Amino acid sequence: ADSLSKRLVLAGDAWYGVAHGCTRKLGMKICGFLQKNNSLDEKSRMVGAFKESAKNQMSCDNSERFTRAETDFSNLFARDLLPAKNGEEPTIQFLLEVVEILTNYVRKTFDRSTKVLDFHHPHQLLEGMEGFNLELSDQPESLEQILVDCRDTLKYGVRTGHPRFFNQLSSGLDIIGLAGEWLTSTANTNMFTYEIAPVFVLMEQLTLKKMREIIGWTNGDGDGLFSPGGAISNMYSVMVARYKYFPEVKTKGMSAAPRLVLFTSEHSHYSIKKAGAVLGFGKENVILLKTDERGRVIPADLEAKIIDAKQKGYVPLFVNATAGTTVYGAFDPINDIADICEKYNLWLHVDGAWGGGLLMSRKHRHKLSGIERANSVTWNPHKMMGVPLQCSAILVREKGILQGCNSMCAGYLFQPDKQYDVTYDTGDKAIQCGRHVDIFKFWLMWKAKGTIGFEQHIDRCLELSEYLYNKIKNREGYEMVFEGQPQHTNVCFWYIPPSLRGMPHGDKRREKLHMVAPKIKAMMMECGTTMVGYQPQGDKVNFFRMVVSNHAVTKSDIDFLIDEIERLGHDL
Amino acid sequence: ADSLSKRLVLAGDAWYGVAHGCTRKLGMKICGFLQKNNSLDEKSRMVGAFKESAKNQMSCDNSERFTRAETDFSNLFARDLLPAKNGEEPTIQFLLEVVEILTNYVRKTFDRSTKVLDFHHPHQLLEGMEGFNLELSDQPESLEQILVDCRDTLKYGVRTGHPRFFNQLSSGLDIIGLAGEWLTSTANTNMFTYEIAPVFVLMEQLTLKKMREIIGWTNGDGDGLFSPGGAISNMYSVMVARYKYFPEVKTKGMSAAPRLVLFTSEHSHYSIKKAGAVLGFGKENVILLKTDERGRVIPADLEAKIIDAKQKGYVPLFVNATAGTTVYGAFDPINDIADICEKYNLWLHVDGAWGGGLLMSRKHRHKLSGIERANSVTWNPHKMMGVPLQCSAILVREKGILQGCNSMCAGYLFQPDKQYDVTYDTGDKAIQCGRHVDIFKFWLMWKAKGTIGFEQHIDRCLELSEYLYNKIKNREGYEMVFEGQPQHTNVCFWYIPPSLRGMPHGDKRREKLHMVAPKIKAMMMECGTTMVGYQPQGDKVNFFRMVVSNHAVTKSDIDFLIDEIERLGHDL
Repeated sequence: ADSLSKRLVLAGDAWYGVAHGCTRKLGMKICGFLQKNNSLDEKSRMVGAFKESAKNQMSCDNSERFTRAETDFSNLFARDLLPAKNGEEPTIQFLLEVVEILTNYVRKTFDRSTKVLDFHHPHQLLEGMEGFNLELSDQPESLEQILVDCRDTLKYGVRTGHPRFFNQLSSGLDIIGLAGEWLTSTANTNMFTYEIAPVFVLMEQLTLKKMREIIGWTNGDGDGLFSPGGAISNMYSVMVARYKYFPEVKTKGMSAAPRLVLFTSEHSHYSIKKAGAVLGFGKENVILLKTDERGRVIPADLEAKIIDAKQKGYVPLFVNATAGTTVYGAFDPINDIADICEKYNLWLHVDGAWGGGLLMSRKHRHKLSGIERANSVTWNPHKMMGVPLQCSAILVREKGILQGCNSMCAGYLFQPDKQYDVTYDTGDKAIQCGRHVDIFKFWLMWKAKGTIGFEQHIDRCLELSEYLYNKIKNREGYEMVFEGQPQHTNVCFWYIPPSLRGMPHGDKRREKLHMVAPKIKAMMMECGTTMVGYQPQGDKVNFFRMVVSNHAVTKSDIDFLIDEIERLGHDL
Repeated sequence: ADSLSKRLVLAGDAWYGVAHGCTRKLGMKICGFLQKNNSLDEKSRMVGAFKESAKNQMSCDNSERFTRAETDFSNLFARDLLPAKNGEEPTIQFLLEVVEILTNYVRKTFDRSTKVLDFHHPHQLLEGMEGFNLELSDQPESLEQILVDCRDTLKYGVRTGHPRFFNQLSSGLDIIGLAGEWLTSTANTNMFTYEIAPVFVLMEQLTLKKMREIIGWTNGDGDGLFSPGGAISNMYSVMVARYKYFPEVKTKGMSAAPRLVLFTSEHSHYSIKKAGAVLGFGKENVILLKTDERGRVIPADLEAKIIDAKQKGYVPLFVNATAGTTVYGAFDPINDIADICEKYNLWLHVDGAWGGGLLMSRKHRHKLSGIERANSVTWNPHKMMGVPLQCSAILVREKGILQGCNSMCAGYLFQPDKQYDVTYDTGDKAIQCGRHVDIFKFWLMWKAKGTIGFEQHIDRCLELSEYLYNKIKNREGYEMVFEGQPQHTNVCFWYIPPSLRGMPHGDKRREKLHMVAPKIKAMMMECGTTMVGYQPQGDKVNFFRMVVSNHAVTKSDIDFLIDEIERLGHDL
C-alpha cells in the first residue's frame, strides 16, 4: 500500500503539468457535457461516482490545484465503464487519464534527459517492483490500480522511440503512425472481408498498388497483403513459388513434388530457412550462398549451386535475394541474380524487409536495381520507414496466385452471394483467417508526409550513418567489420579497448574481443543511457551493429553513442 | 473544399461538448506547461504555430467558446510534430484532437440511436465520398486534413462494438482492452526478446501459465505463445505434432516422413485444412470426420477413419477436436476423442478459438471436459472473452517442444551471452521474427475484471443466446437449423417469409429460402441498423447464424434483431 501511494504522488505530478492551469480537467469536462445535454436524464448522470467531483467543480475555480483524489478512480471498476448505465462519463474520464499517461510517455520518449530503459532482471520484475504485481487474480482491481499498472508497464519497459535507442531495425515513434494505431484499435475490426472493414480493405489495396508501382511492376499490377511481419511475408513468397510450379502440393502435399531446393545467402535472414522447415522442404534443403566480404551474394556461387543441386537430382525452385541484410545491410546484386533465375526458370524473391524503404529515395533506390524483375517482394514499412509495429507487406507480381495458393473457400465467411463485389474480400488470400489492420497507420503516415516525406526520412538516416562511418573509420580503438562505406544504415564495428590495442592478433585476442561488446552492452542497459545491437557473424567475433531508422536521431546522438562506448569500454 | 468545410463544422461540434466549459482546452494545456517549465527556453516554445492561440489564452476565459480555428492545424504538418524543435505542443494538441475523435466514436458506438454502419459499395468509396480521398500523393497533407481523414475513416467503417453488431465471433469494444491497445501502440515494441519487451514478455508468460492452469494441465506447466490469430495457432499445433513424432522433417523435409494424415470434423474451422496445405501435408490428407446433427464429431467415425487410413498405408498423426465450431457452436466430445488418440498414439489438439472462453465459467466449462488431455490448445481471448483484436493463444502441454520445433538460433538476435536469463526470450519459439504485443490488453482486462469478471461475461452471453433460442424456437416463420438448445451462443435459424410458409418442401422452396438470408442481410447493411452472419452448411441452404460475444448486448437488442429480420424479410 505504501508503494502504491508513492506512485500515486508521481501520478499527481504528471497531472500537475497539464491541469495546474485555471481549472480542473474533470470539472471542465462535466461542465461541457451538462451544457450540451441539459436534460434531466443527463443531469442524473452526475449522481453516483462523480457526484463528489462534480459538486466541487460546477464553477470555474482559478486557484485550486488538481489533485488525484478528485478523480475518484479508486471506487470505479471496469464494470462501471460503458456499456454500463451512466458509464459514459467514467469511460471518457478513464480514457483521458490513460491518454495523459501516454502523452507524458511520448514527451519523455523524445527527451534526451530521460533514460532509454530502467533495466531489471526477470526475477526482479517477477518479484514485484515497488508493488508492481504482474500476477492475475480472481477479483477485479479498481481503475485507480489499473492506471498505476499502466504507468508501471511503461516505466519498466524500453523506450524504443528514444533518440538513443539503436537496438533494432525498427525504432522511433512516429506521432502520425501512433495516432493511426490508436484509431485502428478503436475501430477494432478485421481485414478478412470488405463487409466489416470497407475503408481499411480499400486503403490496403491502394497502398499495395502504390508500392508495386514503386517497385516498378507494370501499372502496379499484381497482388499482395500485409502480413504479421517479414518472416511471414518471406514464408508467403516460398508458398506462392511452390504453388506456381507445383500447384498439386496444395492438395497432395510435398510428396507430389520432386525434392525441391531453395537458395538464399548465408547473410540472409533466418526466416527463409525457417520457411523451409515450416513448409516441409526441410532446412537442409535451403542452400546457403557464399557472399563477398561486404555480405553480398556471389552470383557465380548461385549458379554453381543450382547446377550442383540439379546434378544431385534436386529441383531448384526459389532464390531469395536480400535487399538490406540484417547485420551488414548488404544489397545482393538483384539483376545478376535475376539473370540466373531466368536462365533456370526459378522464382525470384527479394527480401526487402529492411532495405525496401530505400525504394522511396531517388538517391538510394539504385541499390535495389533489378527488383522489378522479382516475382515477389517483402517490404516492411515498420522498419526503415518508421511505421509503428507491425507493418510488413508481401507483394506478388502475378495476380491471382496468392488466392490460388491459399483459398479454401470457406462458405461461412466468404459468401459469393453478398450484395457487394466480393473480389474485395481478402481473407481467402491469407494463411490467417482474421487479420489485424496493419494498413491504417501506414496510409495515414503516407498522407501526412507524402512520398517526399518518406524520401527525406530515408536520406537523412543514411546521412547519419555516413556521419558515423566517417567518424569512426580511422578513429583510434575502432575496427570496421567490412571495408568501405556501408550500403544501408548498418555500420558494423569493433571497439578495441586500450588493453587489447597492442595485443597480437590470435585466439587470445579474439576471445577477449568477443567479450567486449556484450560487456559494454550490459553496462549500457544497466545505465539505461543507450542501446545498440551486437552479434557475431560467421567467423567474426561479437561486434556492434549500429543502425539508424528513427527520425529523432541527430548527429549528437551518434556522438553520444561513441562517447558512451568509450566511457564504458575504456577499462575493459 | 466545400465538403471539407462541411465536415470541419461537424468537428467543431464535437469539440463543443468537451470544451464549452469555463476555459478552452488548448489554453489550459499551455498554461499548465508554462507554470511547470518556466524557463526562458520553455517560454520560447510558444513562438511559432501556437503563438496565436497562446496569446488568447493566457488567462482563464469564462465566456469564450472553443472554436476549431484556434487549433490552427491547417498550417501544421507532420514535420512540425516531435521530434521537431518546438514540436511538443503541436504533438500533444494533435494527439488530444485525435483522442477527441476517438472518444466521440466510442460514445457513439454504444449509442443505439446510431447506425452500425453507413454502407457504401467499393466503387463509391474509391470515387471519393464527399471529398474523402483514399489516394496517396507525393506531397504532405496538413494535420487538419489528417484529422478529417481520421473522422472519415471511422464514419465509413463498421462499428464492431455496437450492441447490434452480431456479425462475427469477435465483437464488442472493451474500454480497458482499448486502453491497453493504446498503451501497446505507444510502447511500440516487439515480443521477440526480453531485452526490448521485459514487462510484456513476463506478462505473456504469466498469463499463458494461468490459461494452462485453467485448462487443467498439472501446475500450469507447458509452453505457449500469442500468435496472429486462431488459424496460425492451429497451424502451430500441426507443426508441433509433426515435430514431436517426426523431428527429422524440420531438417530433411516431408520426404523424411511417411504419408501423414490429419483428422478434423467437417464442421471444423477451415484453418486445419489450410495448415495441411501450407505445411506440405496436402489438403486431401486432412480427413474430414462425420458429425451428428448438432455438428459434433462422431468418435466412431474417427476410429473407423484411422483404421482405414492405416490400412491404406497412411500414418495418422493428429486429431483436431473443436470446442465451439464456427457455425453451430458445437463442442466435440473431447474425452471420447482423447481415448482414441491415446489408443492410436496420436496428437490431440483442441481448437478452442471460439469455445475456449467457456473454460472461465464454472457453469459452462463442462462442455470442454477432457481438454486437460489435449496435447495442444488454441484459445482466442479476442473472441468470446471480448479482448480487442488480435489475441490468440497456442498452448502446448509439453515444455520445450515449441522451441525445438521452431528454433533457428539466429545469432544476431538471440545472443547467448546477454547479461540476463535468455530463456525469457521468446523469438526462437515463433515462426515469426518480430511479434506484435498482443498480451497487454488481455492482461490489463484480466486485472480489471478478475477471473470472475470473465466468468460473468461468458455466462451473460450464453443467457442472451438462450433467450433468443427460446424466443424463436416455436415462433411462426422460424425454423431452427438443429434441434435443442445450442451449446454455445450460436443460434442458427431460417427465417421463412410468409410467401414461403405454405410452400411444399422441395427444390423450389430450397432455392427461394437460400436467397432469403442474403437479401435480408443486404437490406440490413444498407439500412445500417444491425448486422448478423449467414452461410450455407453442407446441404443446408443459407441460414442466419446469430452469436453473442459483445458485453453491450441486452435482450432488447435481441428483440430488435428479430423485429428487423421480420420487417425486412416480410415481403420477400
